[in-house]
Amino acid sequence: MTHGDERGPVSRAGTAGVPDWAHHPAEPGARLGAGLLGDWQRRNAEASLPLALTQLEDAGNLDNVRLAIRADGGAPGTDGYRGPVFMDSDIYKTLEAIGWELGRSPGNPALTAFTGDVIELLRQAQRSDGYLNSWFQATGESRYSRLASSHEMYCAGHLIQAALALHRGAGDDRLLDIAARVADHLVREFAGQARALDGHPVIETALAELHRETGTPAYLDLARQFTDQRGSGLAGDFGMGSRYLQDHQPVRQTDTEVGHAVRALYLEAGIADVAAETGDRELLQSSIRRWDDMVAAKTYLTGGNGSRHNDEAFGDRFELPPDRAYTETCAAIASFQWSWRLLLATGDPKYADHMERVLYNGFAASLSTDGKKFFYVNPLQRREDHYEKDDPGRRHAWFSCACCPPNIMRLLASLHHYLATTAGDTLYLQQFAGATVSGAGLTAEVTTDYPWDGRVTVRITAAEPGERALAVRVPAWAAGSKYQLNHDDQRTVPAPPAYLLLRREWKPGDTLTLDLDVAPRWTLPDRRVDAVRGCAAIERGPLVYCFEQADQAPGAAVDDLLVTPGSALAEREADLRGVGPTVQVAATAGNAARGQPVTATAIPYFQWDNRDRGAMRVWMVAGSPA
Amino acid sequence: MTHGDERGPVSRAGTAGVPDWAHHPAEPGARLGAGLLGDWQRRNAEASLPLALTQLEDAGNLDNVRLAIRADGGAPGTDGYRGPVFMDSDIYKTLEAIGWELGRSPGNPALTAFTGDVIELLRQAQRSDGYLNSWFQATGESRYSRLASSHEMYCAGHLIQAALALHRGAGDDRLLDIAARVADHLVREFAGQARALDGHPVIETALAELHRETGTPAYLDLARQFTDQRGSGLAGDFGMGSRYLQDHQPVRQTDTEVGHAVRALYLEAGIADVAAETGDRELLQSSIRRWDDMVAAKTYLTGGNGSRHNDEAFGDRFELPPDRAYTETCAAIASFQWSWRLLLATGDPKYADHMERVLYNGFAASLSTDGKKFFYVNPLQRREDHYEKDDPGRRHAWFSCACCPPNIMRLLASLHHYLATTAGDTLYLQQFAGATVSGAGLTAEVTTDYPWDGRVTVRITAAEPGERALAVRVPAWAAGSKYQLNHDDQRTVPAPPAYLLLRREWKPGDTLTLDLDVAPRWTLPDRRVDAVRGCAAIERGPLVYCFEQADQAPGAAVDDLLVTPGSALAEREADLRGVGPTVQVAATAGNAARGQPVTATAIPYFQWDNRDRGAMRVWMVAGSPA
Repeated sequence: MTHGDERGPVSRAGTAGVPDWAHHPAEPGARLGAGLLGDWQRRNAEASLPLALTQLEDAGNLDNVRLAIRADGGAPGTDGYRGPVFMDSDIYKTLEAIGWELGRSPGNPALTAFTGDVIELLRQAQRSDGYLNSWFQATGESRYSRLASSHEMYCAGHLIQAALALHRGAGDDRLLDIAARVADHLVREFAGQARALDGHPVIETALAELHRETGTPAYLDLARQFTDQRGSGLAGDFGMGSRYLQDHQPVRQTDTEVGHAVRALYLEAGIADVAAETGDRELLQSSIRRWDDMVAAKTYLTGGNGSRHNDEAFGDRFELPPDRAYTETCAAIASFQWSWRLLLATGDPKYADHMERVLYNGFAASLSTDGKKFFYVNPLQRREDHYEKDDPGRRHAWFSCACCPPNIMRLLASLHHYLATTAGDTLYLQQFAGATVSGAGLTAEVTTDYPWDGRVTVRITAAEPGERALAVRVPAWAAGSKYQLNHDDQRTVPAPPAYLLLRREWKPGDTLTLDLDVAPRWTLPDRRVDAVRGCAAIERGPLVYCFEQADQAPGAAVDDLLVTPGSALAEREADLRGVGPTVQVAATAGNAARGQPVTATAIPYFQWDNRDRGAMRVWMVAGSPA
Repeated sequence: MTHGDERGPVSRAGTAGVPDWAHHPAEPGARLGAGLLGDWQRRNAEASLPLALTQLEDAGNLDNVRLAIRADGGAPGTDGYRGPVFMDSDIYKTLEAIGWELGRSPGNPALTAFTGDVIELLRQAQRSDGYLNSWFQATGESRYSRLASSHEMYCAGHLIQAALALHRGAGDDRLLDIAARVADHLVREFAGQARALDGHPVIETALAELHRETGTPAYLDLARQFTDQRGSGLAGDFGMGSRYLQDHQPVRQTDTEVGHAVRALYLEAGIADVAAETGDRELLQSSIRRWDDMVAAKTYLTGGNGSRHNDEAFGDRFELPPDRAYTETCAAIASFQWSWRLLLATGDPKYADHMERVLYNGFAASLSTDGKKFFYVNPLQRREDHYEKDDPGRRHAWFSCACCPPNIMRLLASLHHYLATTAGDTLYLQQFAGATVSGAGLTAEVTTDYPWDGRVTVRITAAEPGERALAVRVPAWAAGSKYQLNHDDQRTVPAPPAYLLLRREWKPGDTLTLDLDVAPRWTLPDRRVDAVRGCAAIERGPLVYCFEQADQAPGAAVDDLLVTPGSALAEREADLRGVGPTVQVAATAGNAARGQPVTATAIPYFQWDNRDRGAMRVWMVAGSPA
């Protein structure tokens, strides 16, 4: 097996003409080194991925494919099929994670063997016309007869994404052959027709990516067709209505996200792809408009999306309850993917800022410290004695609807692809992590203990001749931070959101030292967010902090602590292994009039629920101003 | 057809020994006269009930019974059955409403004819062993094979309640014969066994009531058995878990309401019945404990219950979001019934206070001014451009799950039964309305324009000889209000919650004039309710007020208005026909620093959504203190 070319998601265009992207992903070969993101990626390979391999057998996903193979020779039926209709997608997300992981650690025997076995199963299951879906083959239900709920193209989309990851990461083209046959089948079945739309988007972005890889115009055309057709009722209605499926209004006309959050956000990734690849500025502007609205009015401090348990849906504007936040892990991943595409399409650092917020908070909290338990739902508050049905709201080892865990794994395994972009002669460092990145004729080695520490050292290790630029994102919270180039005087970074852009003839050994101010800070909510009125939160660098009951003094109930926004925030190294610096703040336990003064302790939000099931909150009740 | 004895829900015990009730319902024959409650009752008969009669045909409820009749002679199957499994219960709730209504307006030909036709259908459908359920008979599904979700006993319970209403209201015993055969069947099938529990309570309170009517001990025994058995997993699990069904812990041990709100509250009505009828003080205390907890920590200002759309469920303590309040209409009705039973069991006026809060707010809002549209969900806030799925959150003409409309009708038709209670030689006036009530040897004629006006005149029109007492509830908000007996000096009512109790030898013509202070007032939330922190509401007498966009000045968005708690509240007669006095308050439109001063207008909450679909809120954002 050859090693792949290691390109990541949204690779630069192949033979498909000139796409309308402002930025391109950095060169293949980026690596995460020492630091938190690298630790996450290693933990993913060592602790999380092995769980998926086991679960795909235990939960029946692979048996379902075996059932589909057997059904070709006998009478199909629902007997024996296990789990929901989209069980195949968990296989594909796992394979995608493996594809990226094999790029990082080629030759891993367990992953290689598993991949070979599963691809062989899929090869056997695929029908001669290219169709491949274990549910519809095993049960004999009519293909494409209920696309609103069948997830057939959703599964196909994840298959395509897995195939591209195996191709780029592991140089393994076997699944790509299967995926191309699936895509060709979809083109034959749907191209040029107004037949139906899959109720769960993802096929749009997958087809666009496959087009970028193969240059086949029909794939992009079909992605564009599905995007253009959405909003006319073609997705159908399986009892959830049209907004749930983003099918209430053509996407060019909508201003705000509605309905099922994961569906909406995967659709947006596809819209951004189609818009940029086809040079459709109107379509791109519509996506940007909704992104701006979402971040302003429908996004949690953690970057999470989806305010309603009911329908796993976006709520109204400014409907952002911290306790009832649904903020599904998959929505964080989809949002990350959408923002990445808008970053590439526009080069605007606000998208990378938001990706950072999502990554370190809403997304990162979905995983336990040991990498073996998962949140599906990521609220910003858990009350004492909380229950949702009979569930006390802790992380689970797995789920009957297991979309999130393998989705987490595929993002973590591909994390090194999101660190940097290029535009012309400029290499943009978008995320801060111990890493090596290359592009625009520069190779840089980044060393940092970010986000725990704000110092980021970027050392040029190779530079092509001539003037070129190195750009480093200045996070929105880092105004006034300092930087130093080699031994020059220290200077102040430009006012964010911005890039610190340094143009010169770079030489190996040139070193940029960035000192981002990660001191803890108070954050106040938008006054229109009813659910956290009169509250304040603490952030530190890119990290949102939270108060867990386990860290508080006896008698100081997290849900009845008063803090004073603007008061001093002290840092202390955590006693707990693997927990970032804690933040101490003077607080009052109980109500203001009769309360007792206490010191309250906050930890990074993403590290919550690794101890007991006590109360937690991000937004603390604000007492009198300082 | 003879006229009934007009006893209402929880009639005094018949031949069943000495139940443990502190109070009894007042004498049969109470009548609502001029005033809001009387208007509601007339509107119910004239506008709402005719809709139910039409809908029971149009939605298929009666056809389902016809299907069940035919299935006895042929092959059953789900073909042709319309609506959910509990369609029968809508028939029974309508018949119950008709029963009470025929007590008020005997001989109504449309209601009488409909009742006869439906009872004849039910008679034909009932199996020889007493079983009667259209779904299970029409479809041939096994009886009692999935009680967690089948609603078989839920339907039976509503049948019993309808039968008692027709007996007491209309003197029509035909349905009572059918109901007794159903109850006898249940006794044969379930008494003395640990077989299963219905996932949706109501049978408990229905059997207790049937016992009160007939004196048959087996009915009360079975109600007690079902109550005692709950909490041991016997209800089963149809994927919603045990808390949803209140089956996670024996009811004697639980401290707080959990799970599906309507189920929980009907169960409590049954628990109160069983506890009082059997003299089980421990059981009664457990119900009281949960009532206190619910009212303190899980009840909205409107008296509504159920904080979560997901599972139509109670939330955690102090989880009370006004925008996402589910506060199902049926939950308000069930809570009203539970409080009535605790009022009778204890005589504590706090229960009547709470009934009043529920009646005039959470319950009353469920109906449009014209009586022809219904809310299933009763939030305390609706944002601009709100959607829940594709539903903009307005009242509906009917529902595919139509539990609420006929439930509203049965409560309104029986409203006159909840006005007064007796204990020994005392007649207690619990609710204020133009009405005639009797009990404890006194007959009183009440005239009032309550709740619009605070004057309540109670004139004795008949009195048995000797000393006896008239007691009038002093609402919690009415501290310092005045009263005058005949031409005596005006005095101040006792501090609420209390009864103003006047003991004397009453003579016809004696007149008590109560002047309850219904001036508008500010209400601040409990500090532990995160969702309305920093907000204030306006109440006036028993009415919660709300701000609807339609009443505000141009540019003054309801969701961005600041008010000042403690500032002056002015009353003005409404321009709108049928709308109570509006309340005017000085406010700031937009945020405090840059906002414009405006006069904001509030209307009674129960009258909202009778115009457009603009924003509404009960809890207004509080700016600086006065």
